[in-house]
Amino acid sequence: MNLQGVMSREIVLAARPGPAVTPALFELRESAVEQPGDGQFLVRVIYLSLEPAMRGWIADAPNYQDPVPLGAVMTGFTVGEVMASRHPDYAVGGLVAGRQGWQEWALSDGSDIERKVEPGAAPLSCHLHVLGINGITAFFGLREVGRPKAGETVVVSTAAGSVGSIVGQIAKIEGCRTVGLTGSDEKAAHCRELFGYDHAINYKTETDLAAAVAAACPQGVDVYFDNVGGPVSDAVMPALALGARVVVCGTMGMGASPEGPRYNRHILVNRASMQGFLVFDHWHRRDEAVRQLESWLADGRIAYLEDITDGLDKAPETLCRMLAGDNRGKTLIRVGPEPGKSA
Amino acid sequence: MNLQGVMSREIVLAARPGPAVTPALFELRESAVEQPGDGQFLVRVIYLSLEPAMRGWIADAPNYQDPVPLGAVMTGFTVGEVMASRHPDYAVGGLVAGRQGWQEWALSDGSDIERKVEPGAAPLSCHLHVLGINGITAFFGLREVGRPKAGETVVVSTAAGSVGSIVGQIAKIEGCRTVGLTGSDEKAAHCRELFGYDHAINYKTETDLAAAVAAACPQGVDVYFDNVGGPVSDAVMPALALGARVVVCGTMGMGASPEGPRYNRHILVNRASMQGFLVFDHWHRRDEAVRQLESWLADGRIAYLEDITDGLDKAPETLCRMLAGDNRGKTLIRVGPEPGKSA
Repeated sequence: MNLQGVMSREIVLAARPGPAVTPALFELRESAVEQPGDGQFLVRVIYLSLEPAMRGWIADAPNYQDPVPLGAVMTGFTVGEVMASRHPDYAVGGLVAGRQGWQEWALSDGSDIERKVEPGAAPLSCHLHVLGINGITAFFGLREVGRPKAGETVVVSTAAGSVGSIVGQIAKIEGCRTVGLTGSDEKAAHCRELFGYDHAINYKTETDLAAAVAAACPQGVDVYFDNVGGPVSDAVMPALALGARVVVCGTMGMGASPEGPRYNRHILVNRASMQGFLVFDHWHRRDEAVRQLESWLADGRIAYLEDITDGLDKAPETLCRMLAGDNRGKTLIRVGPEPGKSA
Repeated sequence: MNLQGVMSREIVLAARPGPAVTPALFELRESAVEQPGDGQFLVRVIYLSLEPAMRGWIADAPNYQDPVPLGAVMTGFTVGEVMASRHPDYAVGGLVAGRQGWQEWALSDGSDIERKVEPGAAPLSCHLHVLGINGITAFFGLREVGRPKAGETVVVSTAAGSVGSIVGQIAKIEGCRTVGLTGSDEKAAHCRELFGYDHAINYKTETDLAAAVAAACPQGVDVYFDNVGGPVSDAVMPALALGARVVVCGTMGMGASPEGPRYNRHILVNRASMQGFLVFDHWHRRDEAVRQLESWLADGRIAYLEDITDGLDKAPETLCRMLAGDNRGKTLIRVGPEPGKSA
């Protein structure tokens, strides 16, 4: 392919966030696309996914990985097409899923590629949610830490989110009763109608959330898959059943309330456990999750919602919109057209 | 034995506690000792142990067991001597450990007996701490939930207490580095000199407890055996190491501060777990713990401190004194003389 004169846009992290994440933290740059050197290949990014965890990735606070350096291309999961290659394992026209970040074109030596994607097995964008980090998180977090048994009650926070919606559906497949906690009536409807929850609660409109959770879980909560922490979780902890497992997967809801009721007594009385889960600890087993999720997806047992915005330049404001909860499904940027489709 | 005219004193729970436990919650009664019926035997109680958990046993709040009923003899662990028997398994002169409660004489059908005690294997009172519920709690709590590995750092709260002191010593036997948190300079000295802690911190005099814990644990805290909860624990949680295990064994320190900093982020970032531990879940395996502890005790590898008060009538005020932290070791009531000794 002749790359002469082709320009690539990229977005770099320009500043660390204060209390809020704003588009001004990011900066758009443009540079000429380079030809791959020996052992390299060039990827045209098609989809970029935006994660709630990005709030942590850009902050200079203790986290499970080093923060994105200032001035560096913002980190992000992508799927794309190989457009030029001098690498023996990656042929032109192949599709790849990886961590190529917020850029239109990316040179790679393969180290930032997660896996090759078979075209047609599932919609391409699914490799960024159900078959990507969200689905893998839901799969291992629920099964390895939550360890649900058929007949148990599983409560999920941010139940309509890109992780939570899959957790709820896997829990149903495992034979559990599912209760979803979510932040709008629309999302509660999605929980019930699209993601198969037995019960959904809008935590923003409940006057007594703890009572609503207790009423929805008459046998107690056996597994609490917590994507949020904070006041929403405060309403779930008193309803834990004997031997309950709490999967600590996200803590964004703690932002506004770093202090809260202590959980020790609920944990002790119920001999419950509360355990931190990070998908990267299970990343070497991701194929196991992807194969199972692909099969459920093909059988129509896993539904999903996408919120797609066109154009890399929209990524900063779209991230902020998502962090504010104003999204309708998994938030993706369509950086460029899918193969065979026009822009 | 002629029991004609022998009177037994017993102490019943007369009222539920308010914010404080006071001697006025208990009432002393006296009645004539009854001869055992068929299948029964009569025990003269020698030692009664007082537990911090008794605060919970008498409260009408959700707990791991039903509260002591009003008007009933107060529950408690005891060792005693069989003085009369019409039960084939219990001979006169035998020693028994059980839950015979706050009374001088107790009729039994065997259901409240934990085990027979071999005289001479260890001091009789040890069956109420190192070889009793405290030692069994330390043994299973540390090994089953804490799962320490040689070379790891184990932090213990109420480190000089009847559970904590044994936890620290077992952790040393397992090859760990131990750091004890305790509430007086005298107890800190006991931690270092008697219980073999590598480091002891008086949390009441430290101006920055979190900094003191972090400094004492340069590699982070691998196991936190938490007997207290509350502000003391708040100083430990930020120092958790990757994969840390927190044993939630006691929560008395939460009383004055039911709210506090949320631990979710420390748990998530370190993929730590926090798990409630109740010794009764492991009670069927208690012989395993007792045999091992007896052997360590015989080898001089487990030290202990006792705080013994004479007379059943002193139990209520002694309990209150212990709950106020004003005790010097495992708190016991000597209800009657040991066999062969005069009162």
